[in-house]
Amino acid sequence: MKKHVVISEIWDIVKDHVYDSFRKRESRISTLSGNIVETMLAEDVISKRNLPHYTASAVDGYAIRSESTRGASPATPVYLKDNDFYWVNTGMAVPGKFDCVIMVENSTTRGNYLLVYENLTVGKNLRTVGEDVYCGQVIARKGDIISPYLAALIPVAGVKEISVFPKVKTVFLPTGDEIVYPDKWISSDNQNPGNQMESNSIMLKSLFGQWGYPLDVFPIIPDDPVELRRYIEEAVQNYDMVLVGAGSAKGRKDFVQKVLSEMGKVLFHWTLMKPGRPAMMAQIKGKPVIGTPGFPMSTAVAAWSIVFPTLNLLNFGEIDREEVLEKAVGAVETLKDVTLVSPHSSPSGIEEWVRIKAFQINGQKAVFPVSGGSSKMLSMAEMDGVSLIPQQALEFPKGSKFPYIWLTRDIKWEKRALYQGSNDPAFDRIISFVRDSGGDIITRYVGSLGGLAALSRKEAHLAAAHLLDSSTGEYNTSYIDELAGEDQWERILLFYREQGIIVKKGNPMNIKRICDLVDQNIRFVNRQPGAGTRVLLDYFLTDQGLDHSLISGYDNCTVSHFDAANQVKVGNVDAAMGIHAASYAMDLDFIPLTEEPFELVIPRNNIDHPAINALMESITNNEWKQRVNAMGGYRWAT
Amino acid sequence: MKKHVVISEIWDIVKDHVYDSFRKRESRISTLSGNIVETMLAEDVISKRNLPHYTASAVDGYAIRSESTRGASPATPVYLKDNDFYWVNTGMAVPGKFDCVIMVENSTTRGNYLLVYENLTVGKNLRTVGEDVYCGQVIARKGDIISPYLAALIPVAGVKEISVFPKVKTVFLPTGDEIVYPDKWISSDNQNPGNQMESNSIMLKSLFGQWGYPLDVFPIIPDDPVELRRYIEEAVQNYDMVLVGAGSAKGRKDFVQKVLSEMGKVLFHWTLMKPGRPAMMAQIKGKPVIGTPGFPMSTAVAAWSIVFPTLNLLNFGEIDREEVLEKAVGAVETLKDVTLVSPHSSPSGIEEWVRIKAFQINGQKAVFPVSGGSSKMLSMAEMDGVSLIPQQALEFPKGSKFPYIWLTRDIKWEKRALYQGSNDPAFDRIISFVRDSGGDIITRYVGSLGGLAALSRKEAHLAAAHLLDSSTGEYNTSYIDELAGEDQWERILLFYREQGIIVKKGNPMNIKRICDLVDQNIRFVNRQPGAGTRVLLDYFLTDQGLDHSLISGYDNCTVSHFDAANQVKVGNVDAAMGIHAASYAMDLDFIPLTEEPFELVIPRNNIDHPAINALMESITNNEWKQRVNAMGGYRWAT
Repeated sequence: MKKHVVISEIWDIVKDHVYDSFRKRESRISTLSGNIVETMLAEDVISKRNLPHYTASAVDGYAIRSESTRGASPATPVYLKDNDFYWVNTGMAVPGKFDCVIMVENSTTRGNYLLVYENLTVGKNLRTVGEDVYCGQVIARKGDIISPYLAALIPVAGVKEISVFPKVKTVFLPTGDEIVYPDKWISSDNQNPGNQMESNSIMLKSLFGQWGYPLDVFPIIPDDPVELRRYIEEAVQNYDMVLVGAGSAKGRKDFVQKVLSEMGKVLFHWTLMKPGRPAMMAQIKGKPVIGTPGFPMSTAVAAWSIVFPTLNLLNFGEIDREEVLEKAVGAVETLKDVTLVSPHSSPSGIEEWVRIKAFQINGQKAVFPVSGGSSKMLSMAEMDGVSLIPQQALEFPKGSKFPYIWLTRDIKWEKRALYQGSNDPAFDRIISFVRDSGGDIITRYVGSLGGLAALSRKEAHLAAAHLLDSSTGEYNTSYIDELAGEDQWERILLFYREQGIIVKKGNPMNIKRICDLVDQNIRFVNRQPGAGTRVLLDYFLTDQGLDHSLISGYDNCTVSHFDAANQVKVGNVDAAMGIHAASYAMDLDFIPLTEEPFELVIPRNNIDHPAINALMESITNNEWKQRVNAMGGYRWAT
Repeated sequence: MKKHVVISEIWDIVKDHVYDSFRKRESRISTLSGNIVETMLAEDVISKRNLPHYTASAVDGYAIRSESTRGASPATPVYLKDNDFYWVNTGMAVPGKFDCVIMVENSTTRGNYLLVYENLTVGKNLRTVGEDVYCGQVIARKGDIISPYLAALIPVAGVKEISVFPKVKTVFLPTGDEIVYPDKWISSDNQNPGNQMESNSIMLKSLFGQWGYPLDVFPIIPDDPVELRRYIEEAVQNYDMVLVGAGSAKGRKDFVQKVLSEMGKVLFHWTLMKPGRPAMMAQIKGKPVIGTPGFPMSTAVAAWSIVFPTLNLLNFGEIDREEVLEKAVGAVETLKDVTLVSPHSSPSGIEEWVRIKAFQINGQKAVFPVSGGSSKMLSMAEMDGVSLIPQQALEFPKGSKFPYIWLTRDIKWEKRALYQGSNDPAFDRIISFVRDSGGDIITRYVGSLGGLAALSRKEAHLAAAHLLDSSTGEYNTSYIDELAGEDQWERILLFYREQGIIVKKGNPMNIKRICDLVDQNIRFVNRQPGAGTRVLLDYFLTDQGLDHSLISGYDNCTVSHFDAANQVKVGNVDAAMGIHAASYAMDLDFIPLTEEPFELVIPRNNIDHPAINALMESITNNEWKQRVNAMGGYRWAT
């Protein structure tokens, strides 16, 4: 058994140990089984028929004898009697006494006569017997992958059965005492702590579908080595490849390594990938059994870098290094040497999978990694693509280039703008209206100050800010003056919103003012540095001469209003600063402190961007405005 | 109704007339229906749950209180009693009295004590409630296409139903009195003249599968306008899009245009595409009904350029001109500005679809068109890709460039060699052995002379020839001396083969010698100019002082031995020149005339090519030799 392998070592192990037992998997299948496309032929296919099997007309027209057209010309047509011509549709059989066909367009009928204006040669507009394929001809070869066109030809050529290497059949075995079936999970909002929905089979089934392979799924197996062994035995009996979900790490209920090593030969365990470390592979009765780690992103990584390459090898006898990962992740496009707009550190000695979002600015494509551990599903759902950072690469400073990016969704580059700046739920809901108006906006919530800084570095198309300057009491102006430099930035007042203290329903800690937060019994959660809401809190603290170090939790950060409100809702903290809408949405109490303007900031250079145009259209959309009104705590500027 | 439209006009028509009736097709579907992936969201999806819904451990280890680790260091560990720590697997709930988790790797147990060597902060290795997704968060937006990852997330977020634009459902209606079901076709080798197998549904179902869309197929509809109307009515009732196979041209049984114009509005008829001229589209009850021409290649062309783009528009609201055809043909790679090694003429004013085969020589990729009308299935099955010749482009001389090529299969460029030269069935069967030995050979049968000429132009990796020099009586030498120039060409004598006259079983015309062909009652078919077999015939004629113009059919050409023998077999001709193996395979009689050497010719520059190495290995393969022995008429050189 190998330990701590990189991807290329995994593929070598599969090639060296697993491949041979699959070479002989030839089987004969009926050509009408409806399932032959994309399988590989195990022997040459020889036609049993002539195609066409009769002399056919290649056009709509009249079958005639070529000798009867001698001397015909536009000026001197020949007249054929009704015995001497015969109507044929395209593809119809031409009776033996005729030897060519005149196209209907090139002839006329007059009474019982056909007038022909040209001299035809023997065979004109005829398809001779066997012209397409002759009986005995090789129509496809061993090693060919059956295309839609070959799938249609094979039965036409009278071939009833072919010998193929059938598509590898895979089964996924979800395991874990804490795993809950989707219907049970979705039917009740009260799930026990620790429970997880069995979602990996949904992702894997979709991926297999996109790859064009079947995947079956077994019932959820409890964390019990006896049960696990029984199911793996059944799986190995009936399938070509087995995936065992979770249970291959170091937890007390992780029995997969133990069971696999008892049942067969473990080929490797632990990878040098992040995520996906605990992945493993064993060979049992010649068949590959892959332990896929349980976190969603780890499952995806194992699917991309181990499962699909193994499928590809077993089906087609090779792994083409340049292509296999591209296909595995379902890349719609591969970008090379793409600029990063935020720094990225990769761990030493590890191949790291990074989720990214992509955009185009000043004619250049650029990306930023989306944060998220292997348990994070949202950053997988939101990603535009992935990159695989080589083992040796460690530090990617801002402005450096990722060697390649596989985009996993189509991006309309010209239509897409990047918003960096303050988090606001009303703005978040405008994006679908922007799409309806022919634009698209992706968001990166870096706080008000971060957004303006990104604009000044030309790393965003637009920002929004609500930054109070405590020396002037004015919002945004002094910050923009400093950061815009020579550029001209437009400011659009979108709305006013109420800021205040978010507390539990009924306000059990009886919080009334900012100074009430300075109490070691009150647990507070703050926003990240640079967030306008944090700036506002600091303003109040300074103004009232309060020491922030006396607030319990001042240094703990959340990154959005809803995130902050949610910490109150679930009882992690007693209070947070945030907007009314977040408090309202989560049915919490709210102590209003002030009303602030929320301004869009758009460099004049970007004002003609399709997404900005669409945004300008959308901010007057009544449906959006109604949605915002329903959120609570917003007031329109006019 | 528009007539004679180009592809972009077709798309404009679809956009202008068909699209709007589909915009409102929103429907609510269960998120557990197993079928949500790749559909487009019709509204934002909002999480109904916090993910995780409890405070979870992010690692395998011990839940502890952070305050109990104050002052801990590698030199001065703190000792925790068994009430003060609690084992948690990754993902397990952390009991409320603990506020962080120490990784199992960073702690040791001693008796009932846990030793901790570091000072932990609140929240270390914890995943807080809602950290991934908070209740109320937008997790996907209107217009998003559901990825495998989003498909997994949506039910995890507690969302039971979503609003989507469901995938367009299509049905194909095969029509024609002459059309036979595949099982009936394949079960009997005696098909009536004019009958065709219903193969287009096989091709279309495969294409739809590759595109990721469903396709249903109706029973075969006879050429009867009443029946046709009845089925189209049923189809329009139950499907979003209807394809009517064949019947839209000018044949006497072509009722599709008539029926569609009675039932709805015909949007266009006749295209400026080749093939695919008779394609048409109507709108009936708001739904697109497309008439797809019946020939296999015409069906494919209509599928690529009309059906898929319409699907794409109806599903996603747009047709991206750069991408849609690439996806429609299933391009695995797009090549630009690729050199043609044979000339191509395209008809004026027509967008022509050309099937190509591709190879690489001297580090350059190159292609040649494969011949074939729209009825030819083999050239579709054999093609490596397609090109769409623009309307304005007419003449492509040899050496000019096709603007782009969509490759429809993976090509191992380094492994593939192009053979040009003489047609030989024994050589044809060696190719799968070459593949087994790690090479690949594609063939272009241009005759012995054509092959040597291609070598001298460096347009092939290898050739084979059996060219008799009538002045010397020697084979190949004088031709090679003339064509090789400065280059060194290796000659490998593969075998000797018997050449002679192929006649019907029992030799009813009593043909014994070459001079018997000079008889106007005997119909003969020749081989193409430059074929060694034709050179041989000419040698005999000259040698015996016979006038070739007295042979009836001297100017009619076939392009292979089997093709020639087949013309005898089916009764088109009485005699052909060819090798014994072709006669034997078709159970015909054979009058031997001579035995000729069949030599491979390989420029020394190409001798290290992987395909040539594999070929050298294969020519000693006993399995291949046995197969050749069974063909008859071959003798090994040694």
